[in-house]
Amino acid sequence: MVSREAIILAMNANPAAKPAVTTARLEAFSDGVFAIAITLLIFGIKTPVVANHDAGELKRQLWALWPAYLSFAASFAIVSVFWIGHHQMFQLISRSNRTLLWLNNAFLMCVAFIPFPTSLLGLYWDQRVATVFYCAAIIVTGVVFYALWAYASVGERLLYPGIPSRVVRIAGWRILIGAFFYGVAIALTFVNVTASRIVILLIPFFYLLPSSIDPDIET
Amino acid sequence: MVSREAIILAMNANPAAKPAVTTARLEAFSDGVFAIAITLLIFGIKTPVVANHDAGELKRQLWALWPAYLSFAASFAIVSVFWIGHHQMFQLISRSNRTLLWLNNAFLMCVAFIPFPTSLLGLYWDQRVATVFYCAAIIVTGVVFYALWAYASVGERLLYPGIPSRVVRIAGWRILIGAFFYGVAIALTFVNVTASRIVILLIPFFYLLPSSIDPDIET
Amino acid sequence: MVSREAIILAMNANPAAKPAVTTARLEAFSDGVFAIAITLLIFGIKTPVVANHDAGELKRQLWALWPAYLSFAASFAIVSVFWIGHHQMFQLISRSNRTLLWLNNAFLMCVAFIPFPTSLLGLYWDQRVATVFYCAAIIVTGVVFYALWAYASVGERLLYPGIPSRVVRIAGWRILIGAFFYGVAIALTFVNVTASRIVILLIPFFYLLPSSIDPDIET
Amino acid sequence: MVSREAIILAMNANPAAKPAVTTARLEAFSDGVFAIAITLLIFGIKTPVVANHDAGELKRQLWALWPAYLSFAASFAIVSVFWIGHHQMFQLISRSNRTLLWLNNAFLMCVAFIPFPTSLLGLYWDQRVATVFYCAAIIVTGVVFYALWAYASVGERLLYPGIPSRVVRIAGWRILIGAFFYGVAIALTFVNVTASRIVILLIPFFYLLPSSIDPDIET
Repeated sequence: MVSREAIILAMNANPAAKPAVTTARLEAFSDGVFAIAITLLIFGIKTPVVANHDAGELKRQLWALWPAYLSFAASFAIVSVFWIGHHQMFQLISRSNRTLLWLNNAFLMCVAFIPFPTSLLGLYWDQRVATVFYCAAIIVTGVVFYALWAYASVGERLLYPGIPSRVVRIAGWRILIGAFFYGVAIALTFVNVTASRIVILLIPFFYLLPSSIDPDIET
Repeated sequence: MVSREAIILAMNANPAAKPAVTTARLEAFSDGVFAIAITLLIFGIKTPVVANHDAGELKRQLWALWPAYLSFAASFAIVSVFWIGHHQMFQLISRSNRTLLWLNNAFLMCVAFIPFPTSLLGLYWDQRVATVFYCAAIIVTGVVFYALWAYASVGERLLYPGIPSRVVRIAGWRILIGAFFYGVAIALTFVNVTASRIVILLIPFFYLLPSSIDPDIET
Repeated sequence: MVSREAIILAMNANPAAKPAVTTARLEAFSDGVFAIAITLLIFGIKTPVVANHDAGELKRQLWALWPAYLSFAASFAIVSVFWIGHHQMFQLISRSNRTLLWLNNAFLMCVAFIPFPTSLLGLYWDQRVATVFYCAAIIVTGVVFYALWAYASVGERLLYPGIPSRVVRIAGWRILIGAFFYGVAIALTFVNVTASRIVILLIPFFYLLPSSIDPDIET
Repeated sequence: MVSREAIILAMNANPAAKPAVTTARLEAFSDGVFAIAITLLIFGIKTPVVANHDAGELKRQLWALWPAYLSFAASFAIVSVFWIGHHQMFQLISRSNRTLLWLNNAFLMCVAFIPFPTSLLGLYWDQRVATVFYCAAIIVTGVVFYALWAYASVGERLLYPGIPSRVVRIAGWRILIGAFFYGVAIALTFVNVTASRIVILLIPFFYLLPSSIDPDIET
């Protein structure tokens, strides 16, 4: 508190002395949206409605929900990937500004949207259009995430000093590669829909592999 | 912990020595409500129900949801604006009291209400009454937000010392201008409903523009 | 981190030296449940379903939702009261133990339950049974809250040293008075249901009034 | 902030000097998912739909929801157990790595899934398949939780130094015992379904009992 008073007094004394704006509350708010969006994914799995509480029918319906289970797992994994990536990115970003704030809000809007295509994919697993819609939603999320990183890192605009350019470049590529894979999944729907869905389930595993920049970033 | 014990002992020794009540936990709780309300907006977009899983029908229904997508985006943007504004406001407020606490609760109640008019606007985009209801809900939110600011800032009641009166005044105006624009959107529904909806979509962009008080407030 | 290592090493050296268990993470988890439960109340207001998007019918249905709006507001206010009370209580509680943890969990379970009777009251405002159920749910919540406080404060078991017994006593009374008022609301349903609902709407305002123990507790 | 800059500069100077990765943000994110999942359980209790607002029918339906109330309480209690266990576990874990992060994400996915079997059990309390599904979901959650602990504790991989091996062993057993009891509940469905449900309701009480390792762990 004292420091905040000191900051304001300093600002009044010398407006040019404006302190670097930290990212702590932005990170906390983002974590909140991530935690909520990832937990709401469960509503993509609708409780079966069984007439007369027939045991066999309930069992059949629970098995028939397998696309919803897979869809839940795939989205949980990819939102986890975005969360870890966002967390790592903000280990390298030293301060915020109005543009970064709004790019981050746009990114969070995409993350908060994901429960909708997840529910869609779980319900219409057999439909090409659901797969395309799902992949498109995640590609847009990835592209906005890339824009966030590009904005923060161009000319080391908002980064801590001394981050190797190799780290900046590879971090960017890792985001784009994910988006590219979802593009491949879209393309595959025109060839073999099952192959497409397998790709969707496998993409998060790519991010399980250690990366060459891991030693440079706190996890 | 030590400090809390010390505070209580000091209070017993001298009740007049009651320390200024800080705003940290109030801010954390508000951030929680903001993060949840903004993520729940997605439930305004209902998963389509398609008989016989007809591909064409699913595609048509996904396109037909465009008002729900726009409504989600407009609300996400304006709740973001309120969050950023709330965050900035509490950079200037040094302590809390019972009245501020309840004004803040009333404001959070309005924020938590927003998913309902959002869902309404997405479903009944073609209806004047949905637009009026949506705008009215956000105007009420803005007015309560203004009351919060007015209460805290009149006579510098709860502010850090030394904040220029220009900052206090402009911060208040920026809240009222938003409410005014939503009033314009209501008025426009009597003239041209499409124009009204365009205004609703544009209002958040106003807050993207840099403000003359930015250098005085941490973002 | 160093301190945690030091604590564990110290514990191994001398198990009796176990440090007082603080309440920080318990408070953070409780705040999370409060923020979520209070925001989920909005789902008690169901979006109207209007055949053929008839404007007059939509307007009529929005007006007809007034019990749901009132129910939302009443619950938002009383959950706010519980949150503020919980926050103030933990300003006086210095450490946790297994029993306190479970009493707190039981209290949070009651808080998390409140969206259900709220939705019920909004939908069946005209039914005595909905009012009784709603009041009973809040009375149970209040009684568990009182048990939490009684457990922590008997013999100053878990309190900071030096808290006046007057503060302990009045804090307890303030919880029981709320529960008593909801009991009055139940009794009134047998006389005049409208009077009962007015009482429900007025109870939170009781907690708006300053209390004689305010100067003793950080808000 | 200074420390983060210092860390990055140090990393560049000497990549081998990479600091231990702390678990603070992982714990905060996990707490968020726990708080949300536990509060969403309430949606397993569906608001009754009563034609013509018949008072007797509403009362009958509220009584008939008793399996949903019990299911809500049982899940709230067991998720609380997992939360307390997770919290205690991370009192002993000193640092994170990629594998721990993903094991933790897998565990959170299981926790986020629990509202679905809870809703199922509340709706189909009379069906053996619902009980089996519910128990299986919690067993999987427990097994993943055990894997998390085994990974962190084998050879004291990620633990604070000096934790007695007795604590590591008993903590593991306490997780497996819970999973075992749910297995017993599954077996009992083939004998007496009521007995099975009583076991489900009693299991969380096992964790109310003090454990011999309590003095070694901060609660």
